[in-house]
Amino acid sequence: MSATLPVTPARPDALALDADDPLAEHLAAFLPATGVSAYFDGNSLGRPLRATADRLQSFITEEWGTRLIRSWDDRWFAMPLTLGDRLGAVVLGAAGGQTVVADSTTVLLYKLIRAAVDASTADGTTAPVREDIVIDVGNFPTDRFVVEGIAAERGLRVRWIDADPVHGVTVDQLREVVDERTALVVLSQVDYRSGALLDVAGLTAVAHDVGALVLWDLCHSAGAVPVELDAWGVDLAVGCSYKYLGGGPGAPAYAYVARRHQDRLLQPVQGWMGASDVFAMADTYRPAEGMRRFLSGTPPIVGMLPLEDALSLIETAGVPAIREKSLALTAFAISWVDEHLAAFGVRVMTPREPERRGGHVTLGHPSFREITPELWEVGVIPDFRHPDGLRIGLAPLSSGFVELERGLLRIAAAIEQWTQRAGSTPRGGQPS
Amino acid sequence: MSATLPVTPARPDALALDADDPLAEHLAAFLPATGVSAYFDGNSLGRPLRATADRLQSFITEEWGTRLIRSWDDRWFAMPLTLGDRLGAVVLGAAGGQTVVADSTTVLLYKLIRAAVDASTADGTTAPVREDIVIDVGNFPTDRFVVEGIAAERGLRVRWIDADPVHGVTVDQLREVVDERTALVVLSQVDYRSGALLDVAGLTAVAHDVGALVLWDLCHSAGAVPVELDAWGVDLAVGCSYKYLGGGPGAPAYAYVARRHQDRLLQPVQGWMGASDVFAMADTYRPAEGMRRFLSGTPPIVGMLPLEDALSLIETAGVPAIREKSLALTAFAISWVDEHLAAFGVRVMTPREPERRGGHVTLGHPSFREITPELWEVGVIPDFRHPDGLRIGLAPLSSGFVELERGLLRIAAAIEQWTQRAGSTPRGGQPS
Repeated sequence: MSATLPVTPARPDALALDADDPLAEHLAAFLPATGVSAYFDGNSLGRPLRATADRLQSFITEEWGTRLIRSWDDRWFAMPLTLGDRLGAVVLGAAGGQTVVADSTTVLLYKLIRAAVDASTADGTTAPVREDIVIDVGNFPTDRFVVEGIAAERGLRVRWIDADPVHGVTVDQLREVVDERTALVVLSQVDYRSGALLDVAGLTAVAHDVGALVLWDLCHSAGAVPVELDAWGVDLAVGCSYKYLGGGPGAPAYAYVARRHQDRLLQPVQGWMGASDVFAMADTYRPAEGMRRFLSGTPPIVGMLPLEDALSLIETAGVPAIREKSLALTAFAISWVDEHLAAFGVRVMTPREPERRGGHVTLGHPSFREITPELWEVGVIPDFRHPDGLRIGLAPLSSGFVELERGLLRIAAAIEQWTQRAGSTPRGGQPS
Repeated sequence: MSATLPVTPARPDALALDADDPLAEHLAAFLPATGVSAYFDGNSLGRPLRATADRLQSFITEEWGTRLIRSWDDRWFAMPLTLGDRLGAVVLGAAGGQTVVADSTTVLLYKLIRAAVDASTADGTTAPVREDIVIDVGNFPTDRFVVEGIAAERGLRVRWIDADPVHGVTVDQLREVVDERTALVVLSQVDYRSGALLDVAGLTAVAHDVGALVLWDLCHSAGAVPVELDAWGVDLAVGCSYKYLGGGPGAPAYAYVARRHQDRLLQPVQGWMGASDVFAMADTYRPAEGMRRFLSGTPPIVGMLPLEDALSLIETAGVPAIREKSLALTAFAISWVDEHLAAFGVRVMTPREPERRGGHVTLGHPSFREITPELWEVGVIPDFRHPDGLRIGLAPLSSGFVELERGLLRIAAAIEQWTQRAGSTPRGGQPS
């Protein structure tokens, strides 16, 4: 037993992990964040690339400033579809012609859910009429809010799945809720709270068994875990591009509609960019063929630019390697917390099985509301979630193991100080 | 009569007009457009400011790259409302708390029109039920498409105003169409084709006389003509920010809801950013107080940045001075066309009365479809509109009189060549 052995043999040394990391070369592609010692929110807002700063400059002087309106013909007009296809190929496992980049996640959820339930409830050949939308109580608020609103305005019923908050919806749970009245099931591939990774193929098959469609929200998964929309038989999907995909704050969202459904689905926000002949200025709206019909207004060009660079990097690295590093990072975090923070009463609220885990780890402790601002002050940046959660979000391309350990050490120190302030013993549970 | 007198005494010399232009100092604020000799599409896509190129750099390195997720607390979260208030104060004549920046024009049209007609048709105290939406046949396609779609899904009727294509909807015409069944009137302040400027106050009063609401589309007017939403008693307004407002391609749109209506209007795209407590992750959607309830998804931060710089410039210059220059530019264009292009059969399709004109001049001639690509090739950039229109859009802050004359001369040469190619005499009318 030499002194150079790691303290916990089961957990490799952070320095050694960084040295062996095949993706470490890409860390330098990101802009440095002065004063930030550990960024744990790459699952919420990805970091910008150096290339993007240069690209925005040349975009402004060349594409916008010099080509001016001509850029719409050059490439902007097609960007929602071309960038969508690229996202589909690099990240989503989607063949061309099924993905668009547009709007926000919320607006795309509204458009696709309306399209799905309107087609289902209006379909005279379906008996009995499908009048249920199924969603889990732990789904992201905007998904639940959109579903509630649409159910109210279309006279449909919401059926709630009350899933385990750590592991999320299982195949058996879904099977109990869906039946021949189910129009649509809305689920998230990764739970935004716990980081649980759902069985997309299995859950999709359960919905299909009763003739329902499924919409998958990929906000918290795409870019960190493998997604195979075509192979899994998914009907509809929506996601944001500003988390693991690195598109920047409020970057446009994306929508996937399987080719087999495109002709029969109509979304309600009828705008000129979704019309069959955009510049004909036609008397009446006729939806375009294919994915263009899911567009509404003028595409948000400036907001799409950072995503182009981020996709290039993801393509270079490859999703399988990204997933491998992601699992190594979350395994390191869980093991470290078990060793150093369990004694303070910190709970791991993320599945421990690698195959059930997304890209972030959520911890629970009563100190977190109070210490998060302190951590932010010193450049350790996790994400607090009401009531007592702390998300350690680890974007695999921009995160390292030493950075992770540094941040965890700082969190440990903050918890220890908080515990002392609260006059509580380390195992003393929750102060009032 | 000396040789130095202008050829047409009624039209001042372009050089002299540029020399006397009190706004000329601002031309240098825009990035140069290499190879562009006359940009006539500032009414469709405003030119970028030098300041914006620098701002995007510092945004990426500082706000996004270094403050990272903390920027949401710093300022991003409030930006839809703070930038909206600023737009309201500088451009729209709107007191604070009535304007948000969000989504696209089409999505905001959908949200506000749905909110208005749902409130009107659901109001049990109104008898008879208001079941009509009034809109003019010449309104922009996306406005018409949204109205058609909403009418179809809500079981309402569209009543069309068939207005004169040059002068647009008049007070008398609107009075003939509205009655106690009218829920909402949808009009554009400036006609996107002819550039006609409508009487917002007068038309709004006509709608109010029968108890209807009015939504004004300001896409083609705001930033070039005075807008006084509060003073004119407007109920609802929507506009894009990428035309005279210079927000960049596909920049977010904005919505105005008069304070007196905010509490009773609910828009259908219920998302987390419009909820009463955004980060409570509540079980059920409760709309926020005030304008926040008209938001849906995560705000498009990157897309908002150029608008901030453009608003600073507009504020410095002042809308009255911008309007004065705009009228001088369009008067120059009309007078020049009368003198030099009428002989080729070119028609002025814009009102000649200054008080009925917005910021662009539209010409009609059968050559325009063919010569527009030739003009673009040589850096003269107007906008072709089906079937035979050419828009001369003159953003007052970035356009000069010499530039205008240079572009008109090039158009004249192209028409002359086309006429010769077509084997037609100068007054020979339309070749087949």
